[in-house]
Amino acid sequence: MASQPKDVGILAMDIYFPPTSVQQEALEAHDGASKGKYTIGLGQDCMAFCTEVEDVISMSLTAVTSLLEKYKIDPKQIGRLEVGSETVIDKSKSIKTFLMQLFEECGNTDIEGVDSTNACYGGTAALFNCVNWVESNSWDGRYGLVVCTDSAVYAEGPARPTGGAAAITMLIGPDAPVVFESKLRGSHMSHVYDFYKPDLASEYPVVDGKLSQTCYLMALDSCYKRFCEKFEKLEGSSFSISDADYFVFHSPYNKLVQKSFARLYFDDFLRNSSSFVDEVAREKLAPYLSLSGDESYQSRDLEKATQQVAKQLYDAKVQPSTLIPKQVGNMYTASLYAAFSSLLHNKNSSLAGKRVVMFSYGSGLTATMFSFQLREGQYPFSLSNIATVMDVSGKLKSRHEFTPENFIQTLKLMEHRYGAKDFVTSKDSSLLSPGTYYLTQVDSLYRRFYAKKSG
Amino acid sequence: MASQPKDVGILAMDIYFPPTSVQQEALEAHDGASKGKYTIGLGQDCMAFCTEVEDVISMSLTAVTSLLEKYKIDPKQIGRLEVGSETVIDKSKSIKTFLMQLFEECGNTDIEGVDSTNACYGGTAALFNCVNWVESNSWDGRYGLVVCTDSAVYAEGPARPTGGAAAITMLIGPDAPVVFESKLRGSHMSHVYDFYKPDLASEYPVVDGKLSQTCYLMALDSCYKRFCEKFEKLEGSSFSISDADYFVFHSPYNKLVQKSFARLYFDDFLRNSSSFVDEVAREKLAPYLSLSGDESYQSRDLEKATQQVAKQLYDAKVQPSTLIPKQVGNMYTASLYAAFSSLLHNKNSSLAGKRVVMFSYGSGLTATMFSFQLREGQYPFSLSNIATVMDVSGKLKSRHEFTPENFIQTLKLMEHRYGAKDFVTSKDSSLLSPGTYYLTQVDSLYRRFYAKKSG
Repeated sequence: MASQPKDVGILAMDIYFPPTSVQQEALEAHDGASKGKYTIGLGQDCMAFCTEVEDVISMSLTAVTSLLEKYKIDPKQIGRLEVGSETVIDKSKSIKTFLMQLFEECGNTDIEGVDSTNACYGGTAALFNCVNWVESNSWDGRYGLVVCTDSAVYAEGPARPTGGAAAITMLIGPDAPVVFESKLRGSHMSHVYDFYKPDLASEYPVVDGKLSQTCYLMALDSCYKRFCEKFEKLEGSSFSISDADYFVFHSPYNKLVQKSFARLYFDDFLRNSSSFVDEVAREKLAPYLSLSGDESYQSRDLEKATQQVAKQLYDAKVQPSTLIPKQVGNMYTASLYAAFSSLLHNKNSSLAGKRVVMFSYGSGLTATMFSFQLREGQYPFSLSNIATVMDVSGKLKSRHEFTPENFIQTLKLMEHRYGAKDFVTSKDSSLLSPGTYYLTQVDSLYRRFYAKKSG
Repeated sequence: MASQPKDVGILAMDIYFPPTSVQQEALEAHDGASKGKYTIGLGQDCMAFCTEVEDVISMSLTAVTSLLEKYKIDPKQIGRLEVGSETVIDKSKSIKTFLMQLFEECGNTDIEGVDSTNACYGGTAALFNCVNWVESNSWDGRYGLVVCTDSAVYAEGPARPTGGAAAITMLIGPDAPVVFESKLRGSHMSHVYDFYKPDLASEYPVVDGKLSQTCYLMALDSCYKRFCEKFEKLEGSSFSISDADYFVFHSPYNKLVQKSFARLYFDDFLRNSSSFVDEVAREKLAPYLSLSGDESYQSRDLEKATQQVAKQLYDAKVQPSTLIPKQVGNMYTASLYAAFSSLLHNKNSSLAGKRVVMFSYGSGLTATMFSFQLREGQYPFSLSNIATVMDVSGKLKSRHEFTPENFIQTLKLMEHRYGAKDFVTSKDSSLLSPGTYYLTQVDSLYRRFYAKKSG
């Protein structure tokens, strides 16, 4: 029987995003948007997207296979597999069951777990479920595996440049280099229609962008308040942003991440809990002390002032986690963990002993703030090996740039393909790396067939 | 901080099903089916269904409110809320967020959990997640709440009489009357297209009835094999059906439950593990010893022979759990727990000290066999109080019978309403009991509005 597990968390990670991408600057020009609207206004550099040969199932097949191979994990050693996604291809059959193909091959069908659903939060729910399983009485000593996979596409209009696509896999078990601080967790969940997908036949969501941003910031405030309360109860001292080395946010677009960190700074200022708010900052923020909560979410002046005073801390504590979200776009459930991957990529050798605060948000809404303690770990489950395996630079460099016209043409084809049956794809895997799974056919009964690029 | 929880399981339950129903016998006659096709062939008596004022959200609002009120649970005492469902109304926003309305009212928004999805298995996934949470380091001492809610409807044809609708709620915590035997758990998960919902605009599934039945029985065999292995490892003795007092099955239709128990009997016979297989039974089953696995799933003669020899044990160990599934129909995620509710209803005073084996199946496919130990428990969390609160007889008695014509007319209206926007319902709550939530409107932005019947 398994002994009581300690230091449960993330042992290993891998990330996959489609090699097909479009530059935000080119999109800006094509859309006739003012210069900088997407690159500075949204803070985005580039966007990945699935062509007709990729989808959330193929991406997750690719990412899971890659993780198992690169960390030399025997598929029989997986006892739980959880998927977080909001990209629905089938309303009943889980993405997890598609992934079972990889495990059935070697005779392992005894794998718990299904799909978790709530917008961009499903991956966090899947992660918590896997960690809890390892810590529960029903744990059988094997690894958990979490998959976050999404393709974010939007109808023509202002939300379109906030798309993206990726799959992330995380191996869960004891003695991890990325350990959960299980008692530090603040959630905020509420019934809101900020972003949702009620038009079942369409892949596109219904979005109220302004409302969603306010909901995100309100949920952030609420989660941070609870997180601080739990910290104080546990540690006997008050928490401020100086108590964590890094802050990683769910990133629909980078500008919201900038605003979010500035908001935490403002929260600390309001709670008067932070020695790092100097005289200059105090003076700059003083005029906003009297704003109501609602007013404070709408005030552009406050936003500017806080971003300005928080800039230096943002560069140190947040910027290292922004690479992939800025380069790939919103990956929904994978977004937060792609941001965390960026941190491992940028800072892997110096992360041991650091605390990372994570903020997960899913519209509708569900949000949690939680934290990790990082340790170097033992190869292959070490921070530096995770960074090596993920090879973020290599993956970013080997991408293929589409023109905005080709990108739009691809989305048009995908609109027809979504929910359709009885078609074959071009089977063109020329842009994909060896080992990548791709969609070849959907038959007359909607059954989907995939192939793996050899090499 | 919370102390190490013991005997984690189900503390309390409630069930809701629509009062609107149609008799299978009447449906048989209306459809021109041979007499007994639905009542004996499927083994079903009656079927509940949602009219235009009910859906999976309203049913779960009703069931959660009812549980909190009847067991006098302060909504602030809920720390996790998980929903299992395969009835998709929104592809991104979880049903859980709709339920948050009940908790926001009293200021509790710190509630983890989202929706779990894989066909009829989502409820079991949600239940396991909640139990694991209570046993994990991140548990904060509060209760978990599991909701299984589904509306099963089928296109015209042979599957239509296998519909049903219900919502079940289960309160999770330590010192429960229904305790998980956490180490006894056998899962079988695989990639199959037996029943799925790829036509996103339609509420109806794509079903291969014959394949689904074979998948169910194969998964049952596989889970039972693993369950027995784990039992033997843990207890040092072999397991047979005589080691459990009751067997509760996911029930798409009762006939499959009969076949399933007979299959377990046959498995025991094959493993030669059961003293209860007497000379007569042995002789009856001997001709089938040489069948391959595949052949054995298809053999009608074997089916008849095993059902015959297992009849007495079926009546004792299975029949008490079949009431609600036979009367209400397939409730998808709620089906297994409605069967368990039937057992509590029928046998509550005599259940202390008994072991119940549960078999959960979700097409696609995911399946787990697990078990409970029952204890009388302390009021209000006692087996007898759960039976009293659920009031199964009362709810069954106060139903309203629709003619087949009215039932079909209702489904036609619902076909148009599924995924639609910008309509108001009749707001006719006359058939609903006081305290029942119902749908009043879906606005032009697809936002759904509900009211609660006063009384």
